[in-house]
Amino acid sequence: MKKSAFPLAKVYGLLETGPVVLVTTSQNGKANIMTMSWHTMMEFEPPLIGCVISGRNASFDALRATRECVINIPTLDLAKQVVGIGNCSGRTVDKFAKFGLTPAAATKVGAPLIADCYASLECKVADTRLVNRYNFFILEVVQAWVDTALKKPHTLHHRGNGVFVVADETVRLRSVMK
Amino acid sequence: MKKSAFPLAKVYGLLETGPVVLVTTSQNGKANIMTMSWHTMMEFEPPLIGCVISGRNASFDALRATRECVINIPTLDLAKQVVGIGNCSGRTVDKFAKFGLTPAAATKVGAPLIADCYASLECKVADTRLVNRYNFFILEVVQAWVDTALKKPHTLHHRGNGVFVVADETVRLRSVMK
Repeated sequence: MKKSAFPLAKVYGLLETGPVVLVTTSQNGKANIMTMSWHTMMEFEPPLIGCVISGRNASFDALRATRECVINIPTLDLAKQVVGIGNCSGRTVDKFAKFGLTPAAATKVGAPLIADCYASLECKVADTRLVNRYNFFILEVVQAWVDTALKKPHTLHHRGNGVFVVADETVRLRSVMK
Repeated sequence: MKKSAFPLAKVYGLLETGPVVLVTTSQNGKANIMTMSWHTMMEFEPPLIGCVISGRNASFDALRATRECVINIPTLDLAKQVVGIGNCSGRTVDKFAKFGLTPAAATKVGAPLIADCYASLECKVADTRLVNRYNFFILEVVQAWVDTALKKPHTLHHRGNGVFVVADETVRLRSVMK
């Protein structure tokens, strides 16, 4: 795996752009992956992430039971896998095998990292009070891994129905905003 | 204004990509604007948006008091204004005047639309139960406006510290995902 440990205080910059992510869980020795776009940063440090995971997903049950997951950020080269993973269920498919992705052991959670993604965030569930009403989980990132050699990650941003825009050109402006 | 009414059922596709947005409020006859990136879709229809607005922002007080705002989506041509708006406070600055933006009357809320943005979503506060703990508001979109002539909006996606990636190339894959 090309990724190295990444400061928790800088995690927000990875997700604030709104990329589609691949969420991994592991329950009873069985790993699973889901595609997710409905997430937001909620705190800088420790980094908190709010996300909606539908109760129809197998990952919902695994996350609720184990309270652990990994948020992996894919780039353009994985676009077909991202859509494929979103179009089938872990109840009937081993998604790591079907989509040729490589699991790697996390250090602080039981769910696996996806080695093929440029960034992976090990997370623990921090707050479940909006799960029943909105399927909304609040996660704390406890360990982050990033391939920092990749200076311009072409992340995917879902517009719906399998259409994505790709993060490309970068604009830098002087700012006091964090 | 070039925008026309847009179906509420399609709103999620505007925000799911994670663009930086300009949130307008109006309190006691005084309009204000803030820059925001920490938001997520929470429901398709009626469209629900969850967002973090820091208690340090003047907009926090206005949103809590009036329970109404407009989420406006700017494009690359407004990058300087987006950063400038994030770097000053509505307590001391009339941001519409300072940044040369044009307010337009909304139809269902008191806050103004920003005519210069390609999309504007009139919102009412739907749930405040996580405001005290996380500054997290849940908004319902009650009216949407989009300049549908703009087929490829070059939205801005904040990586932190005034650095943005721009939504550019589009990838279309066959998907059953909504």
